[in-house]
Amino acid sequence: MGDARQYFDLPSPFPMKRGGVLHGARVAYETWGELNAARDNAILIFTGLSPSAHAASNAEDPSAGWWEDMLGPGRYIDTRRWFVICVNTLGSCKGSTGAASINPATGEPYRLEFPELTLEDAANAGHALVKGLGIERLACLLGNSMGGMTALAYLALHPGSARSHISISTAPQAQPFAIAIRSLQREAIRLDPNWNNGHYTEEQYPEAGMSIARKLGVITYRSAMEWVGRFARIRLESDQRDEEPFGAEFQIESYLVGHARRFVRNFDPNSYLYLSRASDWFDVGEYGDGSVAQGLSRIALQRALVIGVETDILFPLSQQEEIATGLRAGGAEVEFVALDSPQGHDAFLVDITRFGAAIAHFLARL
Amino acid sequence: MGDARQYFDLPSPFPMKRGGVLHGARVAYETWGELNAARDNAILIFTGLSPSAHAASNAEDPSAGWWEDMLGPGRYIDTRRWFVICVNTLGSCKGSTGAASINPATGEPYRLEFPELTLEDAANAGHALVKGLGIERLACLLGNSMGGMTALAYLALHPGSARSHISISTAPQAQPFAIAIRSLQREAIRLDPNWNNGHYTEEQYPEAGMSIARKLGVITYRSAMEWVGRFARIRLESDQRDEEPFGAEFQIESYLVGHARRFVRNFDPNSYLYLSRASDWFDVGEYGDGSVAQGLSRIALQRALVIGVETDILFPLSQQEEIATGLRAGGAEVEFVALDSPQGHDAFLVDITRFGAAIAHFLARL
Repeated sequence: MGDARQYFDLPSPFPMKRGGVLHGARVAYETWGELNAARDNAILIFTGLSPSAHAASNAEDPSAGWWEDMLGPGRYIDTRRWFVICVNTLGSCKGSTGAASINPATGEPYRLEFPELTLEDAANAGHALVKGLGIERLACLLGNSMGGMTALAYLALHPGSARSHISISTAPQAQPFAIAIRSLQREAIRLDPNWNNGHYTEEQYPEAGMSIARKLGVITYRSAMEWVGRFARIRLESDQRDEEPFGAEFQIESYLVGHARRFVRNFDPNSYLYLSRASDWFDVGEYGDGSVAQGLSRIALQRALVIGVETDILFPLSQQEEIATGLRAGGAEVEFVALDSPQGHDAFLVDITRFGAAIAHFLARL
Repeated sequence: MGDARQYFDLPSPFPMKRGGVLHGARVAYETWGELNAARDNAILIFTGLSPSAHAASNAEDPSAGWWEDMLGPGRYIDTRRWFVICVNTLGSCKGSTGAASINPATGEPYRLEFPELTLEDAANAGHALVKGLGIERLACLLGNSMGGMTALAYLALHPGSARSHISISTAPQAQPFAIAIRSLQREAIRLDPNWNNGHYTEEQYPEAGMSIARKLGVITYRSAMEWVGRFARIRLESDQRDEEPFGAEFQIESYLVGHARRFVRNFDPNSYLYLSRASDWFDVGEYGDGSVAQGLSRIALQRALVIGVETDILFPLSQQEEIATGLRAGGAEVEFVALDSPQGHDAFLVDITRFGAAIAHFLARL
């Protein structure tokens, strides 16, 4: 498998919102399509917490990306027309500088010496990348989940930096239910003795904490309704059962085990903690008088598409409505799409047909 | 503080549904009011997972019970008319025999040697108590949350044992979302090194696992909507903050900490595991051809009241509707009440006014 990642060196020092600076930091990104001569066909994608910049296959890396069916020549986001950039969030561990990167001041991994991270820092890093690619103004800024919050920070901090915006299953501020879930995920990692205040090793790794955190994530990313149809009360075959006391017995349990297994060693626990907390901190109200409505109304856009899902318990539809209303108050022509996909928060990764139709329709009119 | 608990010795040996027997087992219970001469004014209450039999204050124990405002002279369940019995679930640790009790065969606590527990066993223990009190037929069997499932087991196993039934925020079978949540709670306890396969001590106690389990419980017992109004994004005062890396910063986090602190040492971890799994196993469909509808339709009652809450994510309203429909098919006159209380699953403990009104109205017509 190839590697399509490119790297952009951030200005050094790179100042962080809550204090401190990064030296020699960079972000990983991938691109699809061609930037046109007018440099006005660029779409930047900010991702959710865990995905890499590999949103779709490309010549350098033909493996399927996390949004494979959404993005490519002739697909919903048609890369024959659009120059698409997907950036690995600053603070992540998929090529961008984060807690697992080497701290140039010590020659050792940052671990908890990494400065406090906010989504505003991630937004600024994305903005520096766009400028570095010679793009003055994005045709569209797209963000889903945590990336949707990052996108709102980008728009608030850099007026006029995008003509349009696609906001998917995200939040204008972290609400207490989402904070509670993320706080508990962080606690599971922190309480794992192997976390060791961030000083884990490959041998002494917080597997248990990461497993609980991921399973709790998956539970809140999907929906009860989907699972009734998909798993009901189907039991595991006896040879698939976990022989431990109180071990897995139902298919839903082994589904969660599978998700956890694929995740725990593929995401750096400290980076997870930093990004998780950054999501809790986000509040677009900071860009107004404190209220979400006013913060959003200060964002100037020509057009926006806001998509939410009725079964999403982590980023409820009511928050997508708030975003649509707030951006409309700022003067944008806003299209609001509420989907009844059963897959909950994750629907944008699964129900590509419906999300794709809304996105393609929006982009066609740009 | 006094102790109002009475104890009923179960028949010995007491056979368990999934195999094994208990010797010398007992259940703790409390009562309010007087059994009348016709012995036809008794109401039995099965509780949720963690409450004791102390539903309300009484002469022997004037401390407030977990349903204090619901139950008593002149209250919604008026103990001047009704003889109310609340039983601590078999397998719990609040006086009834469970994993923390002494195994008479060894003189040591059962721990994981306790036989596999089902809600049918808890139902049978409750039924033995009722018979032991000389009551042939209950005026009403009431169950909330896990207790509602126990009540359905009671009715299915003991035809004609109750004239009426009040079912509150429960499930006719465990659905995958609830199984996933409970499985994760159990995993948090099991992964705590101090759990030690059930051989914890007061000194080496699975605090971390119990804390995560309880917090996850509280998150699913309440509702996102309630918390937006109650906690929003209010931060802790700086002197209340946890100085640990990634420690609590928002009020919602310290609310969860408070709940966990009150719980972890007040409930036996092994008993928690047993009761949690018993809930996963419950399926009223076993009493029919496998379907919930048919299992419920085989329950014969004169009247039933089924109450659910729109914001309950753990025991969704759709499951309360299933119960109402199923009992109606069995011939009962069923009243179905859907409340829009914001407190989610816990509403029956908090929104006493609305639950009380529905219950009092139902009981008045018995």
